[in-house]
Amino acid sequence: MKIFTDLTTTPELLEYLRDGIAPHELLRPSQSGASVLADVPTDPIMQEADIVLGQPRVDAVLSSPNLKWLQVSTAGYTRYDTADFRTAVQAKGVTVTNSSHVYDDPCAEHVLAFMLANARQFPRALKSRCANGSPEWNDLRRESKLLQGQSLLIIGYGAIAERVIELLTPFRMDITAMRRNVRGDEKVKIVTPDEVAAALGEADHVINILPDNAESLRWFNATRFAQMKPGSIYYNIGRGTTTHQEDLAAALKSGHLGAAWLDVTDPEPLPDDHILWTCENCHITPHTAGGQFEESRVLIRHFLENLRRYEKAEKLVNRIM
Amino acid sequence: MKIFTDLTTTPELLEYLRDGIAPHELLRPSQSGASVLADVPTDPIMQEADIVLGQPRVDAVLSSPNLKWLQVSTAGYTRYDTADFRTAVQAKGVTVTNSSHVYDDPCAEHVLAFMLANARQFPRALKSRCANGSPEWNDLRRESKLLQGQSLLIIGYGAIAERVIELLTPFRMDITAMRRNVRGDEKVKIVTPDEVAAALGEADHVINILPDNAESLRWFNATRFAQMKPGSIYYNIGRGTTTHQEDLAAALKSGHLGAAWLDVTDPEPLPDDHILWTCENCHITPHTAGGQFEESRVLIRHFLENLRRYEKAEKLVNRIM
Repeated sequence: MKIFTDLTTTPELLEYLRDGIAPHELLRPSQSGASVLADVPTDPIMQEADIVLGQPRVDAVLSSPNLKWLQVSTAGYTRYDTADFRTAVQAKGVTVTNSSHVYDDPCAEHVLAFMLANARQFPRALKSRCANGSPEWNDLRRESKLLQGQSLLIIGYGAIAERVIELLTPFRMDITAMRRNVRGDEKVKIVTPDEVAAALGEADHVINILPDNAESLRWFNATRFAQMKPGSIYYNIGRGTTTHQEDLAAALKSGHLGAAWLDVTDPEPLPDDHILWTCENCHITPHTAGGQFEESRVLIRHFLENLRRYEKAEKLVNRIM
Repeated sequence: MKIFTDLTTTPELLEYLRDGIAPHELLRPSQSGASVLADVPTDPIMQEADIVLGQPRVDAVLSSPNLKWLQVSTAGYTRYDTADFRTAVQAKGVTVTNSSHVYDDPCAEHVLAFMLANARQFPRALKSRCANGSPEWNDLRRESKLLQGQSLLIIGYGAIAERVIELLTPFRMDITAMRRNVRGDEKVKIVTPDEVAAALGEADHVINILPDNAESLRWFNATRFAQMKPGSIYYNIGRGTTTHQEDLAAALKSGHLGAAWLDVTDPEPLPDDHILWTCENCHITPHTAGGQFEESRVLIRHFLENLRRYEKAEKLVNRIM
């Protein structure tokens, strides 16, 4: 088979991929790859491929005559998440997987870093040079919290949520998650979107891991923030488009929310005059939650594992279409 | 019985204590309490007490005619940790406990906050406004790490270490701890001080939870830092005196250590011209690791639980002498 990838990576990791797919043939683009969020021209070499690993254009996928399987090299797949695309790949018999498994671990560790940084009063405590027993010190110690025993609501139940739940097990938190379609095998209490208002009112912490689609657009708006418990903390490690950012700023400035910790915004980065930069209790990392040392190696390893399954006609991991 | 406390707390929590100890009588000092690190005058009212909760002077403890039990209201007990004091309280038949159980949870969550903040490149990522795909962004994502699969050495095995180990279980780290006297019931691999050099050389992360005593003074010095793995991370949530701070600064500035995260220093706070403030990769919180919302309530609850044990002549929790 011919396997095409537009991954931007080192020669060493490209060799790792080439060795891993042998005896299949590796095809490389004539142009270099780009983010799924950007637009790239169709690559003629891709048209020869049986399998693609990367982030090709929608029209390039649909016009590839031999394509049987596309593995998107990110967790997000907004570009492909349309009824038209789903129908077209189904008609062509093309399987689509993504790389969300690669991002479960770093995203889960990142949101736990947010939660603990908030609980232990970072970054304020890291800036303070206060003396033991001073009013500022007493205040900092009093405002330092434990996650242990607090309540958490996760909006969007998938692989990242499952890893967050696993990491939080020793903290004995009271965890609930919202899922559109309950399957029965979830590891925590599940509420449906109809039941979410009450759950929002009870949670000390709310984590947003919603994907980016028409239904999730500005899902967190003034109404939802108002439903949240006073003083509660909002985290977003999903997509920036799922938050109404002006409503979030208002909820932070009024003191209704205790703080927000965001890894994603809309756009990224926010313009320098954006109101969220003026909220002292809004902490933003620049879409680095998915990052990890040798991310490309983990991405390639995930693809090779799926390729072994594909060769044996087994069920693929992270199939989305 | 008469129970004396020099705890500085709110009238509400004092009532909680008074109600909790009934029918015993609560004695309060004529002066207000102070930190175990400071010196306070002997309180004549304390001389009437059967039981003391607080941080009294050593001579006040030894001159109290009726004293049977002292519960120190901190985890550290440097003031009392001498051979003379141990001999004297043993001769008088005074039991001494501390409040370390109160600090296990917050200290363990604090050090995990340090570890995750370091892994996810805080505070650098929280300051960055870099664009997706920019060189700074690629650098940040590449330097973001997972704790999962890394190695950890804990210097000082006690209740805080056990809680750290519990919190890290889902991260599947490779954990070793150093303990002077191995008991056999430890939850991880144990090395003795004689074997520690090799263990220091293998750990990605080293947590110092040593108590403050003659043997631990500047335990982490140039020799020990040189034994640590290049790029490894040093954390101290024990006592500031156990680190040779100029040697630490040198190990950070040379690039041998990746970073240091300290909750304790010597003195606290460090003077503004201290060399550690000039190390970019040294992150300091002002001795707030033990802090938690309603710390005094938790301290009092811990005392009341021990009082119930004392009344039934059961083994006291956190007995130190």
